[in-house]
Amino acid sequence: MNAANAVLRFLSPNTVVRAHCDLPCGVYDPEQARIEAESCYKIIEKYAANEDVAYRTRAIAIKEDRAELVKHHLDVLWHDYFKPEHLEKVPNLHDLFWQANKQVSKVKASTSLDDARQLLSMIDQIDAAWKATGGPEKTRVAGRPG
Amino acid sequence: MNAANAVLRFLSPNTVVRAHCDLPCGVYDPEQARIEAESCYKIIEKYAANEDVAYRTRAIAIKEDRAELVKHHLDVLWHDYFKPEHLEKVPNLHDLFWQANKQVSKVKASTSLDDARQLLSMIDQIDAAWKATGGPEKTRVAGRPG
Amino acid sequence: MNAANAVLRFLSPNTVVRAHCDLPCGVYDPEQARIEAESCYKIIEKYAANEDVAYRTRAIAIKEDRAELVKHHLDVLWHDYFKPEHLEKVPNLHDLFWQANKQVSKVKASTSLDDARQLLSMIDQIDAAWKATGGPEKTRVAGRPG
Amino acid sequence: MNAANAVLRFLSPNTVVRAHCDLPCGVYDPEQARIEAESCYKIIEKYAANEDVAYRTRAIAIKEDRAELVKHHLDVLWHDYFKPEHLEKVPNLHDLFWQANKQVSKVKASTSLDDARQLLSMIDQIDAAWKATGGPEKTRVAGRPG
Amino acid sequence: MNAANAVLRFLSPNTVVRAHCDLPCGVYDPEQARIEAESCYKIIEKYAANEDVAYRTRAIAIKEDRAELVKHHLDVLWHDYFKPEHLEKVPNLHDLFWQANKQVSKVKASTSLDDARQLLSMIDQIDAAWKATGGPEKTRVAGRPG
Amino acid sequence: MNAANAVLRFLSPNTVVRAHCDLPCGVYDPEQARIEAESCYKIIEKYAANEDVAYRTRAIAIKEDRAELVKHHLDVLWHDYFKPEHLEKVPNLHDLFWQANKQVSKVKASTSLDDARQLLSMIDQIDAAWKATGGPEKTRVAGRPG
Repeated sequence: MNAANAVLRFLSPNTVVRAHCDLPCGVYDPEQARIEAESCYKIIEKYAANEDVAYRTRAIAIKEDRAELVKHHLDVLWHDYFKPEHLEKVPNLHDLFWQANKQVSKVKASTSLDDARQLLSMIDQIDAAWKATGGPEKTRVAGRPG
Repeated sequence: MNAANAVLRFLSPNTVVRAHCDLPCGVYDPEQARIEAESCYKIIEKYAANEDVAYRTRAIAIKEDRAELVKHHLDVLWHDYFKPEHLEKVPNLHDLFWQANKQVSKVKASTSLDDARQLLSMIDQIDAAWKATGGPEKTRVAGRPG
Repeated sequence: MNAANAVLRFLSPNTVVRAHCDLPCGVYDPEQARIEAESCYKIIEKYAANEDVAYRTRAIAIKEDRAELVKHHLDVLWHDYFKPEHLEKVPNLHDLFWQANKQVSKVKASTSLDDARQLLSMIDQIDAAWKATGGPEKTRVAGRPG
Repeated sequence: MNAANAVLRFLSPNTVVRAHCDLPCGVYDPEQARIEAESCYKIIEKYAANEDVAYRTRAIAIKEDRAELVKHHLDVLWHDYFKPEHLEKVPNLHDLFWQANKQVSKVKASTSLDDARQLLSMIDQIDAAWKATGGPEKTRVAGRPG
Repeated sequence: MNAANAVLRFLSPNTVVRAHCDLPCGVYDPEQARIEAESCYKIIEKYAANEDVAYRTRAIAIKEDRAELVKHHLDVLWHDYFKPEHLEKVPNLHDLFWQANKQVSKVKASTSLDDARQLLSMIDQIDAAWKATGGPEKTRVAGRPG
Repeated sequence: MNAANAVLRFLSPNTVVRAHCDLPCGVYDPEQARIEAESCYKIIEKYAANEDVAYRTRAIAIKEDRAELVKHHLDVLWHDYFKPEHLEKVPNLHDLFWQANKQVSKVKASTSLDDARQLLSMIDQIDAAWKATGGPEKTRVAGRPG
């Protein structure tokens, strides 16, 4: 139980989580997740418009990969960009990322454009959280290009 | 604001999040994260015992990769194994995974055995949560081998 | 023929193959291969129960990837964990891994549960070889968790 | 020589290169390359500010990976987004991408901020070419977010 | 516009592009691209001969991956092996690689053997360019094996 | 022999291990492993000639990756190209691949050119086995190019 105690102590509210120096780099932008999610959206759109079996097989296999990249980029934001001091500004942070990741799983399994659209909306929420916490200035070299 | 509203509606407490069929498979086990985290532990141990520059360079590069795999396996558990109905049994679920992932970042940056040991403890906590929610029976083909 | 001779000399019975220090880490466990093989098993099970074309396409593509990971984890065990001194305890070592890898190829190509079950049995054999050669104590930080 | 002739015929100016349907998706944005290149930039900045050997080893290994991703994203733009009809608007297209990729190699090998800055400038050129050919409207679901 | 000017200056004809030391290694051979392209060729052949749905799904998913590797190997040759001084000997260098990469996209989308055959021809052209510029002697340890 | 018997029993005496149709493709060539091994060779050569710390760090990290690819390509040959009927012509097949893979591990850990040279010799042995079993005609589309 020693180990468990150590963890509980670590997680307890008065623990100061040391700010650690970010490597790779401190460059984070929800655009990375969004671009891959837009791929999923457009793949579903094209899937609906083409009934060729080989085409649809490719579409499903490629959507799976792009969706996996959405998850990866969301995870990096959640792990590495967002820090305990942001929880005040974004109190639903954890649930937002959890639901977004679960939505990616739904997009993997789905051929409905609504599922992809809802994922884009959730990434927009994450984008808003990134902006509200100073993301553009703190993480991009010269802000987000227009 | 339409999109944001849609998200908020989706996230609102009375939304029924449909149970979705798991593909790949429903097989999840914190052992995957633990084995990679043990690699990090042993790499740090070997790093301390060998001052050769080339050896240490390899050790750091390999630790980076194994640690990245720890994150990946933790993320999959958090996204895909744990579901809303588990939050009652594991109320600190999100924080547990968030802190564990941040600890992996620390292990990447560190050559201290204590950091790796703390990560193992946190994975033990996650293992306990997996067991408390029926993980071994529900996710392994014939339970976890002895 | 110089090069070929050098190789033959190297492979000759009285050559002492130097034990080399393992990096990454010396952490090896057949659980890694087994978990991915269980994924294949459950994917085949779900495939049989769902006739939706898009669902089945995903199942086949994902099974391919999980099976590839089984091969990877088996290869690492064979290359890096098992050493010449283990051949006495496990005289059929090479054939065991060769057949297991060929069975993975069969699972990739198959939608029969029997093929996946046979792969699990072969991994159990490898697990027994790992235990017989002291794997749990020598390679895990605190043995295999229960 | 038959095959070579076929190729020459294929490459000859009056060959109509059929527009092919893009899968994955038709979503392309130089932001993907730029974000990874900004990572390289910031890694070099942090490398200069920290003389710890382990830190610098990580920085170099991570920069290598991020730079490889820059190349990948540039390649996708060049292969898949840009089409023969764009050569009129962007006559130096090939040289632009060739030089940019060679600059990425330089950034991999370098710890000078100037090399990373020059890469960012070259990606800005590519961004301009993407805009000049209608990239934002044609490839993003709702344009590039502000 | 400063940045753009800097780029233009960099790209201008009298700029001396410093020869940079190649790491990884200076080993390049179009065989790598060709072998993966032959895989695509044979997959299409087998696809035509087998009407089983699961078989064909695998064939399409695997062809996608092998084709992606063709692109990767072509890109490495273009970025890293070929240098400005080769443009005299291979004046259509850029177009050759551009068309070959676009042909790979066609092979991904196609189940026609002609498309794969044409890709092989284009790689043969690239192979000829590699030989014409001294590739075998300069890049292989002991030339290309017979 | 216990374990072997169990496997044989498991495979049941009357089970004919069906020759399975190879997908991806049946294209195998030891050139893939050799090219990556030559990269390791040349990286070690360049490492010896350059004492810059950052340069050497890159060299070690890149050699690690290329060596991993050697293992991957060797594994594919062993799993998928070689079949039970080849054991008569190549009786030391398993040991040859096992020792070659262990030599790759040595090359990962080493900065000695001799270790890389020995790996190349072992791959030459494997190449000879591939030729002796009809590899060039059976696996390449038009033999190995000169």
